[in-house]
Amino acid sequence: MPPFAFEQVFASRATRMQASEIRELLKLLDQPDIISFAGGIPDPAFFPADSFAAAYARILGDPAQRNHALQYSVSEGYPPLRHWIAAYMGAIGVPCSEKNILITSGSQQALDFLGRLFLSPGDTALVTAPTYLGALQAFNAYEPRYDTLELTAGANSPAGFIERAAAVGSSVKFAYAVPDFSNPSSATLPLNGREALLDLATELSIPAIEDAAYTALRYDGEPLPPVLALDVARNGDIEACRTIFCGTFSKTLAPGLRVGWVCAAQALIEKLVLIKQASDLHSPTIDQMAMHQVAEACFADQVAQLRGAYRERRDAMAAALEAHMPAGVSWTRPEGGMFFWLTLPAQLDGKDLLARSVAEARVAFVPGGAFFADGSGANSLRLSFSLSDPAKIAEGVARLGTLLAA
Amino acid sequence: MPPFAFEQVFASRATRMQASEIRELLKLLDQPDIISFAGGIPDPAFFPADSFAAAYARILGDPAQRNHALQYSVSEGYPPLRHWIAAYMGAIGVPCSEKNILITSGSQQALDFLGRLFLSPGDTALVTAPTYLGALQAFNAYEPRYDTLELTAGANSPAGFIERAAAVGSSVKFAYAVPDFSNPSSATLPLNGREALLDLATELSIPAIEDAAYTALRYDGEPLPPVLALDVARNGDIEACRTIFCGTFSKTLAPGLRVGWVCAAQALIEKLVLIKQASDLHSPTIDQMAMHQVAEACFADQVAQLRGAYRERRDAMAAALEAHMPAGVSWTRPEGGMFFWLTLPAQLDGKDLLARSVAEARVAFVPGGAFFADGSGANSLRLSFSLSDPAKIAEGVARLGTLLAA
Repeated sequence: MPPFAFEQVFASRATRMQASEIRELLKLLDQPDIISFAGGIPDPAFFPADSFAAAYARILGDPAQRNHALQYSVSEGYPPLRHWIAAYMGAIGVPCSEKNILITSGSQQALDFLGRLFLSPGDTALVTAPTYLGALQAFNAYEPRYDTLELTAGANSPAGFIERAAAVGSSVKFAYAVPDFSNPSSATLPLNGREALLDLATELSIPAIEDAAYTALRYDGEPLPPVLALDVARNGDIEACRTIFCGTFSKTLAPGLRVGWVCAAQALIEKLVLIKQASDLHSPTIDQMAMHQVAEACFADQVAQLRGAYRERRDAMAAALEAHMPAGVSWTRPEGGMFFWLTLPAQLDGKDLLARSVAEARVAFVPGGAFFADGSGANSLRLSFSLSDPAKIAEGVARLGTLLAA
Repeated sequence: MPPFAFEQVFASRATRMQASEIRELLKLLDQPDIISFAGGIPDPAFFPADSFAAAYARILGDPAQRNHALQYSVSEGYPPLRHWIAAYMGAIGVPCSEKNILITSGSQQALDFLGRLFLSPGDTALVTAPTYLGALQAFNAYEPRYDTLELTAGANSPAGFIERAAAVGSSVKFAYAVPDFSNPSSATLPLNGREALLDLATELSIPAIEDAAYTALRYDGEPLPPVLALDVARNGDIEACRTIFCGTFSKTLAPGLRVGWVCAAQALIEKLVLIKQASDLHSPTIDQMAMHQVAEACFADQVAQLRGAYRERRDAMAAALEAHMPAGVSWTRPEGGMFFWLTLPAQLDGKDLLARSVAEARVAFVPGGAFFADGSGANSLRLSFSLSDPAKIAEGVARLGTLLAA
């Protein structure tokens, strides 16, 4: 019998679903002679595995805790973990309570939920160019159009966004940004850019979505206040704020438990709880309990260790790029995060280069074009330094430099 | 400052989001003098907690496994778990391979993904009346209309569904059913009803979604073949099948890890993998590894134990209903699952009764109206027998009978 043609009953949004190129790139990691700068993934050597082992053993060894850990639970998330996160948010300038926190399955799920809450087909989402590929994948399920957010002070014309949207019968629903060490550009939004984002959101009467996946991983300089903290400073209280902060433990403690959170006004959290319930009821209870124990036990030490280790790798990649990249290739030294963003001469295509790089230099990376909602950016690429030690970074960048100079 | 009015930028679907009544009812469980027949949740006394404790200890104690457990992984799910599930599907009449299996965060997430894949606003979904409340919540995010599936052989007119949909500019996208010990009706679809479902789906050229959450919990009689098994028998190969089987470990091993699966033709699984990636990247690696080990170690024993224990409770509730319900209240003895479905005299309202029952009898249940997409069913209610021992069941049903007889 021929296969049933499921595509005849697909929703219109199905046409937007695309496999991530990163997916294919991750498979290259299994080839031991490949040096991969592709995935933005933490080095498992730094996972606090003993602390996790102790936490799961404690939870499952305690009759009072284990039945709770294995049972259904509330969609908002495990209250002590929400309480811990609320205190953490307070420490980074956002006074709030656990009522302002929803636990999500990684911050990826928060982006999916925010797309679901705000976007009807044809609505406008404002994103930077480039922006996080996973955000585009999450939002695409809700069939928006995109307009390009410029995060330089004074660069955005609210009227321009409204006019361009209205011209196609659309309206602007939110602005999305990764202010700290952005994936992929590694750029950090300065204070006046953060204020400009809030100004724009206020003038457009829209929420601002702040993706803070990398915020804890700062290697130089002083932390900048989260956009949500600036919003609280303007409005006096998180309940009056339009900013929606998406956080995660994936880059600090471990991604495999899929524990992230949203911090925002309670009225918004309550709506997201309904979406969480309809989506998957709740994130796994046992992992939330373990994450809470590990965060209590070692969050600060873990972040300090990661900063030291990743700083060394960042410095190794900066030195190697300086030493090996030919003229015409440019980048900015990131203050944190996991990435260098390289701009190649205009005639070069990152995708073509990747094919040659894997075949000839045995080095993998992510071509930059994937990160642009508008299809531009072909002459760029993203290099991650999180997964390789300094010697491997030096070797891989040298090989890539040789390829580019050829 | 006044709160930011997020609702001014909500998507149209936000109007359909509703808090589940079950949510409120679950809070009653914290009141020790309440006898709750509300939640369809497993008794934690039967969780294989020692087996889970051993699995997490083994995984996190092994340097080779623990880095994998804590790291990002593939969206399809943990391959050995998919392999185990494929063998399980083979044993219940569905020969397939791990390529036909996607791991989801409970079968709730599978329903969300299937709504996302098939439903554009205004599309038609066929559901029974009553049907699983969580399915309605999942599908509602995609703004369908519903038409009522009759699962008696010969009761469905394909032309009728098409005509009613076409009259409002809609088309039929799928049929959804819970064939075994349905939540909430506790009805089991007989073999000719399963064939009728496949006939209807074939004539309408739509997929059939088979929600098999309770399938393993049969207390009497011989198992009926899954709809997917009948589809394989008709078409020779799962790759030619239109049926999409949603399974879960929530009712057999433990719900707190949120591990479910979809089994279907590979072409469909590949599309769902893209949705999974955009939604939350993947289900937690560590829980999938633990669930695999526990399933390997004790799935069959666990199911045997649950059947014995829940059969006793089912029998206790049947006897108590027989002894205490006044004339005019009817129900069918379920062959499996967790529920009795009661139909009250037409003038009674399940919601009103619940308020009185909690206040006067200290007994909780779920009013039946919540399970009807069409707003009917007010004079029905769902009683779960999974969480109370036989003595409590007898006591609670007696109190409810007294209230109804008054």
